[in-house]
Amino acid sequence: MKIVVLKFGGSSVGTTEKIKKVANIIKEHRKKNYRVIVVSSAMSGVTNELISKSREISNNFSDEEYDVLVSSGEQVSCSLIAGRLIHNGIKSRSWLAWQMPIFTEGYHKNSRIVQIYKSNILKFLKEGGIPIITGFQGINNKNRVTTIGRGGSDASAIMLAKFFKAERCIIYTDVEGVYTTDPNKLKKAKKIKVISYEEMLEMASLGAKVMQPVSIQDARLNRIDIEVKSSFINKKGTLITKKSNIINNKTITGLTSTHNDSKVTLIGVKDKPGVAASIFKPLSKNSINVDMVVQNISANGKETDLTFTIKSDDLNKTKKILRSNKSINFRKLLFKKDVSKISIIGVGMITTPGVTFKMFQALANKKINIQVISTSEIKISVLIDKKDVKKALTALHKEFNLDK
Amino acid sequence: MKIVVLKFGGSSVGTTEKIKKVANIIKEHRKKNYRVIVVSSAMSGVTNELISKSREISNNFSDEEYDVLVSSGEQVSCSLIAGRLIHNGIKSRSWLAWQMPIFTEGYHKNSRIVQIYKSNILKFLKEGGIPIITGFQGINNKNRVTTIGRGGSDASAIMLAKFFKAERCIIYTDVEGVYTTDPNKLKKAKKIKVISYEEMLEMASLGAKVMQPVSIQDARLNRIDIEVKSSFINKKGTLITKKSNIINNKTITGLTSTHNDSKVTLIGVKDKPGVAASIFKPLSKNSINVDMVVQNISANGKETDLTFTIKSDDLNKTKKILRSNKSINFRKLLFKKDVSKISIIGVGMITTPGVTFKMFQALANKKINIQVISTSEIKISVLIDKKDVKKALTALHKEFNLDK
Repeated sequence: MKIVVLKFGGSSVGTTEKIKKVANIIKEHRKKNYRVIVVSSAMSGVTNELISKSREISNNFSDEEYDVLVSSGEQVSCSLIAGRLIHNGIKSRSWLAWQMPIFTEGYHKNSRIVQIYKSNILKFLKEGGIPIITGFQGINNKNRVTTIGRGGSDASAIMLAKFFKAERCIIYTDVEGVYTTDPNKLKKAKKIKVISYEEMLEMASLGAKVMQPVSIQDARLNRIDIEVKSSFINKKGTLITKKSNIINNKTITGLTSTHNDSKVTLIGVKDKPGVAASIFKPLSKNSINVDMVVQNISANGKETDLTFTIKSDDLNKTKKILRSNKSINFRKLLFKKDVSKISIIGVGMITTPGVTFKMFQALANKKINIQVISTSEIKISVLIDKKDVKKALTALHKEFNLDK
Repeated sequence: MKIVVLKFGGSSVGTTEKIKKVANIIKEHRKKNYRVIVVSSAMSGVTNELISKSREISNNFSDEEYDVLVSSGEQVSCSLIAGRLIHNGIKSRSWLAWQMPIFTEGYHKNSRIVQIYKSNILKFLKEGGIPIITGFQGINNKNRVTTIGRGGSDASAIMLAKFFKAERCIIYTDVEGVYTTDPNKLKKAKKIKVISYEEMLEMASLGAKVMQPVSIQDARLNRIDIEVKSSFINKKGTLITKKSNIINNKTITGLTSTHNDSKVTLIGVKDKPGVAASIFKPLSKNSINVDMVVQNISANGKETDLTFTIKSDDLNKTKKILRSNKSINFRKLLFKKDVSKISIIGVGMITTPGVTFKMFQALANKKINIQVISTSEIKISVLIDKKDVKKALTALHKEFNLDK
C-alpha cells in the first residue's frame, strides 16, 4: 500500500473557501492511486485567539487545560475537511488524536509523539477512505489531552509518515517552498528545488521559517522525503531529502540573515580555566541563549577578550547579570546592538575548497567589515553591521550563483 | 457524599469575564460542603458560528462530522472554567465526554445518554476536586463523538445528577427563573418559587423557553430536584420538583401564549370513519405539526366541519397539500392567520371546580371571543385572535391571583 501524508497548515485551511480548495487537492492525490492520510492544523488565527482567552482567564494558565483548550482548533478544521470530502462523494472521516490514539510523552504544552496505533486507520485506508487526523496533539498515559510543542502539526505529519511508512510527506503551506534566502529581504531569491536534511536544518535553525528544526530532524532520522509546497498555487515545491538523492553542482544552497542580534564584549577577562563557564552559567540559568562566541588570544597570557552574541531582547538582562555577578571579572564591558549574522549554507562546501575565502573576499569587495566568524561543516556565519545586510546578501547571492 | 450538579448555559459563560464569575459561583457551592460537579455549554454564539461554517462547507453536512465540529465548543468553555478554578487555587480539571466516558445511543445530532462511567470522577470528587464536564455530548459504541439533540447540556446535567445520585441539579442561565407568564409580554409576570414537573412540562411545551420538555421529563422520571436561576444575580430561582413537595394555595401556576399560529377549517367534510386520518396523514408525512383539533357535530349526520391549528410557517405547505390531495373531500377551505393559543396551567385545577368557567368568564368580560378549546388534566387552552393576547393575559393573570 503506497501511502502519502498530506499536511495542511493553518493558512491553507484559514476559511471555509480555502478548505474547499484543500478538499480538491486531496482528491487529486487520491487519483494517483496513493492511499492518502491527511493531517491538519487549526484554521489560522484560531489557536492565537484561544491562547489570548487563556491569558484573560489567568496569567499562569494551567498547562493541562491549555492543551485541552487549544487542541479544539484542529477538531474544527478536521471535521470541516472531512465534511467537504463527504460532500464531494469521497469516503472520509475525521480522527481525533484520542480516537486512534496517538500517544505522547513529556510535559504538557511540549509533548512528543512516541506511539501511534494504526489498525483502525489502516482498515479505513483499505476500504478506500481518507482519514483526516488532528495535528499538534495526542494523549498521554493518563488519558489526558496533550499538545506537541515545537514543530506542531509538522511533527505530527512526520511521525504519521514514519509509523505508516509513507513514501512521502507533503507539507502544504502559504509559501511556494524553501528559498535561497528570504524573498522579503532579497527579490532575487529563488525557490530551491531540492535540499538535504542537513542544509534544511541549518536554514531552519538560522531563521528560515518554513519548518521547525525538530521536524526536519525527525524526518532525517526516519529518512522521510518531505515536499514543501503552496496550497494556493499548483506548482512544484521544495523537496527535502537525503544527500545521496541530490545531484547538485552548486556549492551553496542558501543564505540566511538574522535581524535582532546584539554583540557583547568583555575586555580584560582573566585567562584561566573555568572563566568562560563562570560567565555563561548565569546567562544560561536566566534562559539567555548565547550564539556566536569568540575568545581572543591574550597578548600577555594573563588577560583575554571574550565576545559573544545574544538576542537584542536579552540585552538589558545580560547587562544586569554581568555587572551584578561578582564572580565575573573583567576590566571593561562593551555592547553593540544592530548587528546581524549572515550565513551561507551548502553541503557542496565540504568538497569545494576556498569557499570561506570567496565569502570573505565578496564581503571585502563591498567594504563590509566582519566582526565575528563561526563555521560548521556545511555552514559559514559572519557577524556584520545590520546596515550592511542587504548589500551582503546581494553580493553573496551573486557570488555563489544563486541568482540563476 | 452529598453531590450537587451545576449546569451553566452559553450566556453564563459567554465571555472570559463571565467565566470568572462562574468560577466564583462554583466556589460558593464548595463552601457548603457539597461535592460539586459542573456541566457547561459552549460560550454563547460559538455553536451557531460552527454550524454556519458547516453550512458554508455543505448544504448537507455529514451528521457524524457535525457532532465532531460542534462538540469542540464545550471543550473550550470547560477548559477555561477549570483553568480559572485552578488559578483560584481550587483543585479542578476538565473532563471531555470521551474521557469518562459518557455513552450515548441513537442517531448522530440527536443521541441520548444511556450510560455514564463514574469511577474516575468519584475518585476526583473524594480528593476534593471539582470536575468540569462537557455538556451536550458523548460517544457511541463506535467510539465516535455524538451530540445530544433536544435538551442539550440540560439533558447532560440531569443525567449526571441521575447517575451520581445528586441531591439537586442547578441550571444557571440568563433569566432569574420560571415566570407566571412571559415577562416580555406581561410586565406583572412574577417569578414562580416552586413548580411541579408536570406543570413545568406543560409550560415548556407551550413556549416557556427556560428548559426543553425532554430534560424536565428526565428529571421527573428520576425524581431530581431542579433549580433554575440566574448566574448574574444572586437570588433564589425557581424550584422544579414533585407535586408532593409543593404546598400551594394557588389554582393556577402559570399562563402561556403562542405567537405564530394559524387556524385551518374544512367545511363540509364527509362524516364517516377514517376521514380525519385521511386529512392528517399527508400533513404528518410532510412534518407539519397539527396542534388543537376540533370536529363539530354535523347537523345532518352526513357532513361535518373540521378545525385545527398549525404553525403559520407551515400554512402555505398545508394549503397545497389539502388542495392537491384528491382523497380529501370538503366543500370549502378556510384559513385564519394571526390567532394565538392562551393556556392556563396548574395542578391546583384538579381539585378546584369551576376553573374552566372562571377562565371563560374572565375572557368574556373583556369581550374576547374563544375560537377553539382544548384541555388536559392540568391545562386549559383556548384559541383567540392575536390582537387580544395582551388583554387576555392581563385578565387571566389577575383572575387567578398571579399578580401577587
